[in-house]
Amino acid sequence: MKIADLDTPVLLVDRAALARNIARMQQMAAQAGIAYRPHAKAHKSPVIAEMQLAAGAVGQCCAKLGEAEVMVAGGVRDILITTPVVGRGKLSRLMNLVNEARVAVVTDSSANVGDLARAAQTAGRPIDVLIEVDVGQGRCGVRPGAAAGALAAEIADQKWLRFQGLQGYQGALQMVGSAAERRAKVQDALAKLLESAEAVKSRGIPVAVLTGGGTGSSAIDCALHGLTELQPGSYIFMDSKYAAIEWEGANRVPFDTALTVLGTVISKPAADHAIVDVGMKAASGDGGPLAPVDPANGTFSFAGDEHGHLRFTGACPLEIGAQVRFIPSHCDTTVNLYDQYVVVEGDDVVDVWDIPARGRVQ
Amino acid sequence: MKIADLDTPVLLVDRAALARNIARMQQMAAQAGIAYRPHAKAHKSPVIAEMQLAAGAVGQCCAKLGEAEVMVAGGVRDILITTPVVGRGKLSRLMNLVNEARVAVVTDSSANVGDLARAAQTAGRPIDVLIEVDVGQGRCGVRPGAAAGALAAEIADQKWLRFQGLQGYQGALQMVGSAAERRAKVQDALAKLLESAEAVKSRGIPVAVLTGGGTGSSAIDCALHGLTELQPGSYIFMDSKYAAIEWEGANRVPFDTALTVLGTVISKPAADHAIVDVGMKAASGDGGPLAPVDPANGTFSFAGDEHGHLRFTGACPLEIGAQVRFIPSHCDTTVNLYDQYVVVEGDDVVDVWDIPARGRVQ
Repeated sequence: MKIADLDTPVLLVDRAALARNIARMQQMAAQAGIAYRPHAKAHKSPVIAEMQLAAGAVGQCCAKLGEAEVMVAGGVRDILITTPVVGRGKLSRLMNLVNEARVAVVTDSSANVGDLARAAQTAGRPIDVLIEVDVGQGRCGVRPGAAAGALAAEIADQKWLRFQGLQGYQGALQMVGSAAERRAKVQDALAKLLESAEAVKSRGIPVAVLTGGGTGSSAIDCALHGLTELQPGSYIFMDSKYAAIEWEGANRVPFDTALTVLGTVISKPAADHAIVDVGMKAASGDGGPLAPVDPANGTFSFAGDEHGHLRFTGACPLEIGAQVRFIPSHCDTTVNLYDQYVVVEGDDVVDVWDIPARGRVQ
Repeated sequence: MKIADLDTPVLLVDRAALARNIARMQQMAAQAGIAYRPHAKAHKSPVIAEMQLAAGAVGQCCAKLGEAEVMVAGGVRDILITTPVVGRGKLSRLMNLVNEARVAVVTDSSANVGDLARAAQTAGRPIDVLIEVDVGQGRCGVRPGAAAGALAAEIADQKWLRFQGLQGYQGALQMVGSAAERRAKVQDALAKLLESAEAVKSRGIPVAVLTGGGTGSSAIDCALHGLTELQPGSYIFMDSKYAAIEWEGANRVPFDTALTVLGTVISKPAADHAIVDVGMKAASGDGGPLAPVDPANGTFSFAGDEHGHLRFTGACPLEIGAQVRFIPSHCDTTVNLYDQYVVVEGDDVVDVWDIPARGRVQ
């Protein structure tokens, strides 16, 4: 089957570009001696997780317990859940998962530490715990320094919890366009994480893991050698926002576009204006408009849930029925709209991969 | 089971409020003598379609062919697809569907009319066709007036196509806050549709159906008596954007909030600040931030794909683990993130309904 034969909108993954991206990040982390634990929130697919593990990844990060359940069911044996797991029902599900794989979880409060300890004791099985430190993101996480030390001591006092280390993720800095400014912010975030690690160690508690980083900071994280684990996600696909940032020592970001949304022209209301079947239910708009890539000379804007405008300076070169490919502005939320990746190489459709963790927000 | 026992984020539907909304719109349309064909793009559920049909709806609107396939499989026997169906694969699927139910489709181009005619002839089965007229939306649709007459003549000349009438939907006016301004825009859009109907009739072609309208315009559409069919969708749920518009002759919109997203506090980074587990993968942000409803005194903002901020003036009254309910800002795109509605009455969970048309963008 050819791409031209596909009904649209459809989510395409370029298998060769995906493989190149995975190999590049693996190589970057390996050269720095940092473990590579990519984030499953971006792909939500055990097939892609398996490609990352085969390349040398030590496991997967998951944003939610539900994602972790899908990854474990798909064969992943080492998971870090990067958001606190809260609530009786979820703690019970967490302990079920700990029976099947090595699952670590982050926490940031005494209340949650107590709940985790009770759940582990009830299940009769210890669980690995990391402390999330707020290194600048301003959402979850204890304050850097003494607060991390105090919470680590509480965890260390719990018989059924095993303290592993610290997580510090600063999402906003990942997209900073200027490489120099991004480097300064990464250094600042790392300093807060290292200060927290010192506060923990000063209590005689070892810190085995310092985890964080993302696609935008990955080269800087590797150069700074502060983290022990890297958790980038989006590099596998490279949405248009990430592709636009400056990259130190290179003329572009060293990852290739591997994810596109294929649409079709369904109407031509004017000579310079086409309507495509790609709206907010086929590609997320939280990162801005889509980037047309084939052809690349139109300007896209969303026109509702099921429509998009494609405007041209001069005559629109596309007839009704013509296909158009777009680079999503935010890959994570776009992937979360689809049940399947259609896998392509050149003009050929070569495979279909399910996205079983789509919608697993619990 | 009680709501308090649910894992979150979860999409809740208040069954009593939903039933009230369906009854009110049905009554409004019936009193005006206008057929009621609600839009399945909002709910994507044959269970809710069946409630609307039981109340007196003549069928369902669907934005996409894939939604129509789900509705027909779920027992709906009369469908209008409100977006042009383009492409060989889709036309073949469309004709399969015409074997199972009465399915009408809109069109706005000679090219598509020719393709529809060939597909119908190949299938040996005629298909009902309406012309979409651009009454102000500026996306799909022929220009009002003569262009509609000319395209209707092309359809009437095709043996395998049955011309039914015109669709004119102006989405942007639905949300106009001022009732007087909205009424003026509805009148303007209706005038364009009626002008188009005259252009068709002047060629001796009868116009059986004039379809359009939405939640915001529904009372005005009923008062003007121009349309023969109403296609509102969001009134069943009432997102926060729709609930905020002015309603002529009433002190509020006469539909109740029936859709909420339930979340949980997972972190408290400061005394006046909670983090909830509701981010852009649990509620769409294209309509703006969510409205907290229980408790109602916090201010929500998105904090990424899986997190939301909830800030208070003064101390946050919620502890980690507390549940919070939010009204989505845009119900259609929020429903499209979930596989199930959890149906509630008061504090009780009374049912679970699948959302089989979620993600059916093709």
